[in-house]
Amino acid sequence: MKSDVEIAQTAVMKPILEVARELDIPEDEVELYGKHKAKVSLATWQRLKDKPDGKLVLVTAINPTPAGEGKTTTTVGLGDALRRLQKKVVIALREPSLGPCFGIKGGAAGGGYAQIVPMEDINLHFTGDFHAITTAHNLLAAVIDNHIHHGNELGIDPRRITWRRVLDLNDRALRSVICGLGGKVNGVPRESGFDITVASELMAILCLANDLMDMKQRIGRIVVAYTYEGKPVTVEELQVTGALTLLFKDAIKPNLVQTLENTPAFVHGGPFANIAHGCNSVTATKYALKLADVVVTEAGFGADLGAEKFLDIKCRFAGLKPAAVVIVATVRALKMHGGVPKTDLNRENLAALDLGMHNLMKHIENTHKFGLPAVVAINAFPNDTPAELQHVKEKCLAMGAEVAISEVWAKGGAGGTELAEKVLAACEQESSFTYIYDEKAPIKEKITAIAREIYGADGVNYTPGAEKTIRELTEFGFDKTPVCMAKTQYSLSDDMTKLGRPQGFTITVREVRVAAGAGFLVALTGEIMTMPGLPKKPAAVNMDIDEQGTITGIF
Amino acid sequence: MKSDVEIAQTAVMKPILEVARELDIPEDEVELYGKHKAKVSLATWQRLKDKPDGKLVLVTAINPTPAGEGKTTTTVGLGDALRRLQKKVVIALREPSLGPCFGIKGGAAGGGYAQIVPMEDINLHFTGDFHAITTAHNLLAAVIDNHIHHGNELGIDPRRITWRRVLDLNDRALRSVICGLGGKVNGVPRESGFDITVASELMAILCLANDLMDMKQRIGRIVVAYTYEGKPVTVEELQVTGALTLLFKDAIKPNLVQTLENTPAFVHGGPFANIAHGCNSVTATKYALKLADVVVTEAGFGADLGAEKFLDIKCRFAGLKPAAVVIVATVRALKMHGGVPKTDLNRENLAALDLGMHNLMKHIENTHKFGLPAVVAINAFPNDTPAELQHVKEKCLAMGAEVAISEVWAKGGAGGTELAEKVLAACEQESSFTYIYDEKAPIKEKITAIAREIYGADGVNYTPGAEKTIRELTEFGFDKTPVCMAKTQYSLSDDMTKLGRPQGFTITVREVRVAAGAGFLVALTGEIMTMPGLPKKPAAVNMDIDEQGTITGIF
Repeated sequence: MKSDVEIAQTAVMKPILEVARELDIPEDEVELYGKHKAKVSLATWQRLKDKPDGKLVLVTAINPTPAGEGKTTTTVGLGDALRRLQKKVVIALREPSLGPCFGIKGGAAGGGYAQIVPMEDINLHFTGDFHAITTAHNLLAAVIDNHIHHGNELGIDPRRITWRRVLDLNDRALRSVICGLGGKVNGVPRESGFDITVASELMAILCLANDLMDMKQRIGRIVVAYTYEGKPVTVEELQVTGALTLLFKDAIKPNLVQTLENTPAFVHGGPFANIAHGCNSVTATKYALKLADVVVTEAGFGADLGAEKFLDIKCRFAGLKPAAVVIVATVRALKMHGGVPKTDLNRENLAALDLGMHNLMKHIENTHKFGLPAVVAINAFPNDTPAELQHVKEKCLAMGAEVAISEVWAKGGAGGTELAEKVLAACEQESSFTYIYDEKAPIKEKITAIAREIYGADGVNYTPGAEKTIRELTEFGFDKTPVCMAKTQYSLSDDMTKLGRPQGFTITVREVRVAAGAGFLVALTGEIMTMPGLPKKPAAVNMDIDEQGTITGIF
Repeated sequence: MKSDVEIAQTAVMKPILEVARELDIPEDEVELYGKHKAKVSLATWQRLKDKPDGKLVLVTAINPTPAGEGKTTTTVGLGDALRRLQKKVVIALREPSLGPCFGIKGGAAGGGYAQIVPMEDINLHFTGDFHAITTAHNLLAAVIDNHIHHGNELGIDPRRITWRRVLDLNDRALRSVICGLGGKVNGVPRESGFDITVASELMAILCLANDLMDMKQRIGRIVVAYTYEGKPVTVEELQVTGALTLLFKDAIKPNLVQTLENTPAFVHGGPFANIAHGCNSVTATKYALKLADVVVTEAGFGADLGAEKFLDIKCRFAGLKPAAVVIVATVRALKMHGGVPKTDLNRENLAALDLGMHNLMKHIENTHKFGLPAVVAINAFPNDTPAELQHVKEKCLAMGAEVAISEVWAKGGAGGTELAEKVLAACEQESSFTYIYDEKAPIKEKITAIAREIYGADGVNYTPGAEKTIRELTEFGFDKTPVCMAKTQYSLSDDMTKLGRPQGFTITVREVRVAAGAGFLVALTGEIMTMPGLPKKPAAVNMDIDEQGTITGIF
C-alpha cells in the first residue's frame, strides 16, 4: 500500500495555467506561484460577478471518532467523480496549518487517491497566506504593547488585553507567558500568550470578507483590549487598520490548485472550527460558484459545529444558498458511537450500529431543519459487512436522505460515481434554506436555538462570568451578530464522552468573547485549546528532503 | 519632489520572464511569484556551474552617520549605469525585513531613481523567504521545549538554552519573556525571549550555504543548548534536521526582480550585519556571477564591519574573489565625522571635512590590505561645494583610490556613468585578494588581527566571561572558523561616539557565541540589540491601501 505522499508524488499535474484555462480564466488573471499553484486575481471577480452561481454542495460529517471519517477525502473524491460525469466542477477547501503537520497529523490534503496536489507545497508554506496572518496579528500585538510603553494615551488596561500573539506551530510552552520583562526599555511586564495562527481573528476575517475593502472595515472594528474604564479599544483607535490590511493584498486572493485527477480546487483560508467558523474563505467559494456548475466544499468537525456555522454564519454573511448537504459517515465510526471500542471495530455488530446510527440521524434531521436535502456518504472500509451497510441505508432512506457508498480513497473519482449521481439528484430537489436563528435576536436566544434545535439539548446554563459578559456585550451593541459556538467536536453535547445521540442534557456556556471584526460572538462551552502541543515523537522527526528535492514523512 | 514609493509606482516594469530571458534563463527555469517576482531554479545552477564567473564588485561605505550615505541607492544606480554601458550586469542585494519597514525606516530597496521594484512586494512578504526562516526557527524552539517537557532524554539544561524564538517584527515586549507558565500541561517554565528574524542563525545559514544539502548539514550542526554537564546539544540530536531543511526547499532559490531601469537584480537573504555577516545569499551571488559580466553587490553597515565580513567570511566560504570595492561616502557624512553637527552640514567646512576624511581614508587603506582596488563613490548632495568635492578627490587619488561623483538618486543610471567607468577600470587592475586572518588560527589571534588591521586598535581586552567561553569553545573544537565581529557600526572603535579615525584605543570583547551551523564565532564588543522596538509613532500608522490596491506610506 502506497502512502499518501507517495501517491501524491506520482501525480501527473497539469500546469496550473491549463487548469485555469479549463475554467475559462485567462492567463492574465492568474498569478503564478511556481508552476502548480496560483492566485486568481480580483479581475476575475469583476468580470464574473453578475454571472449566475453554480450549485453549492456542502460536505460535513457525523461527530468525529478516533475511527476516522474521511471528510476531506470524500470532498475531493466527490469533486473528481462529478468531473467524470462531465460537470464543470470546482472544489473549495481550507488550507492546512503547519502546526499539526509537524505535530501528529502529517499532511491534510485528502488521502489515498482523493488528494489535492502539490501536496507538500499545500502542507508547507503554500502561497504564504498563513504567514501574512501571523505577521499582521503579531504586528498588531507589538503596536498594542508599544502604545502602552509610550504613554498609553488610550488608557488600555494591561490586564485586559484580549489580543494575544500567534504562530503557525504547535508550541505548548507559549500558551502562557509573561512578556515585557527586563526593565523599562523592554516595555511593560504583563501576562499573555500565543495561539496557533488558525485561531487568529484575522483568519476568520480573511475567510468571511467579501474583498479587501470589506476586510479593512472588519480589521478596523477588531476589539483588542479594554480601557481602565472598561471600554473596548479597537484597531481603528490604534491607527494601524491600513498597515494591517495591506499585508493581505495578496492573501485575499483565492489559491488555485488541482486534485490528482486535475479537478480544479480553491484552497484558501483555514479558521479553527471551535472558536471560529471553520470553513474556507468566502472569496474562494464565491469565485468557485461563478466558475463552476457545481462547487463542492467542506465544513470543519461534525455537522453540529461545522455545518451549523457554515450555514448560520458563512452563508448568512456571504448570501450563499447551498443546494445539498453531504454527511460523511463510516460504519466503523457509527459503531463507536454505539459503544464499540476501537479494537473491536472489525466485527459485525448490528446492535451497536443501530445505536450509533442515531448520531447520523440527528445530523440528517438537522440538515432538514435548515431546509436542505441530505445525502449520506458511507466512506467504505474493507471490513464493512453487507448487513451493516444495508442497515445504514435503510435507516437513512426512511428519513428521506439518499445514501451512497463512497470508495474514493481507494479508487479516486471512479469510486464516487454513485455518490456524485445522488448529489446531483439532491441538487435538483426543491429546497427552502433557512437559518436556525435570527441574528438580531438577543444573545441567549440565539444560543438556546442552536442548543435545542441542533444539539438536542434541553436548555443552556451560563456561568456568572458568561452572564456578566453577555450583559456587557449587549450594552456595547455587540449583540446583533451570529453566535459561533465553541464546543467539543466529539459529542452533540458539551461532554465529549457522550457519544451517539445524547438526550436529556443541558450545555453550559462558560465564557463569551466578541470577535467584532469577524462579526460574531464566540460562546465557549468548555476549555478550548487554542495552542496545541507536540507529541513526544513529533511527525517532524520522520521528515526529510534529499538531493533531488524529494520530501518524505509528510503524509 | 516625488517620494520613493511614488517613483516606484510609476515604474514601467518588464514581465520578469523577459528580464530572465535577457539573462538567457529559459522559461522553464523560472518559478514565477506573480508577474514581477520569480525564483530561479536549481536547474540554472546545474546548467551554468562550469561557466567562468563575471567580475564581482562590492559596494560598501564609510561608518554610517545620521546624514545618510546611500549605499543601496549607489549599488542599484551603479548597476543601472553599467547596463547603460552595454555590460551584462546583475545586482545582488539583501531582502528587507518587515520590522524596520513598519517601525522607522519605511522601505529598503534603494531610493529616488535608483530603486528595485516591485518595491512594495519586496518590502512586504516578497517570496516568503523570511517567513520560512521564522517558521523553521520557531519549530526548532518548540521541539526543544517539547523535548524537555517529555522527559528531557538529552539532559538539556533549561537555563542554558541559547536558541531563542524569532519574529520578523520590531517588538520590544518580546525581548525578555518567561514561557512555559500555567502548570504542568504547558511545559517547563524558563526565561527566554525573541529576536528579529534577520538575527536567526538560520538566516546566516541560508545566506552562506551553497545549496540545500549544504544547508542541511549546517542545520544539523547548530548548537541550541548545553546539557547539565555543559556539553553542546545540536539539531541533529533533536532529529529535526530534515524537517527544518525541507522548509527551505523554495527559500534557497534566489529571487529575481528588476530595477526601475529593468536591470536584473537578485534580492535574497538578509542577515544582521552585527551578530551575522550582513550580506545577501551565496546562492544569489554565485548565480549572478554565472549570468553576468559584472555583478554589483552590497555589504551591511560600514566597511569595517560589512566589507570585512563579506571578504573574510562570505568570500572565504564561497570561494569568491572580488574585482573591486566601491566605498560610498557623502561630503555631509564626512563633515559629521569631522565633528560638524547635523544642523550645520549645509555650510562649507574644509577643516572638518579634512578631519572626517580620515574615516574614509582608513577604509581605503583597509581595502588595499585585502589586496583590492578601491573606488570612492561620492553620493552628491545639492549643498556640496566644488572645493569640498575637490578636497575629497585629491585625498583619495593620493592614496591610489579612484573617485567618482554619483548622482544616481536624482538621475538613475544616467547619473552613474563616471562611477561605472571607474569601476570597470578598477576591475581591470591586477589584484591579489587576501584574507586578514587565517581561519585556523586561535580565536584571540583572529580577533586581534581584525581589531588591529581593520579597526586600527592597539589591542583587545576580554571580559572574564568571554575568556571562559573562548576556552570552552576551543575545547569543543569550535575554534577553527572565521570570527564575526558584533560592534557598533558608527565608529571604527567599539565606542559609537568616536567618529572619524580614532587612535590609541582598545576594544573589549564582552561575549563570544558559537554559530556552528553558520560556521562562525560571534565576538560581541557591546550590547547588541537583536530585537528592535517601535517608535512612539511607527511608520505603520501612515500606511494604507485603497480600493485599487494602491499602497501609501511605504517609502
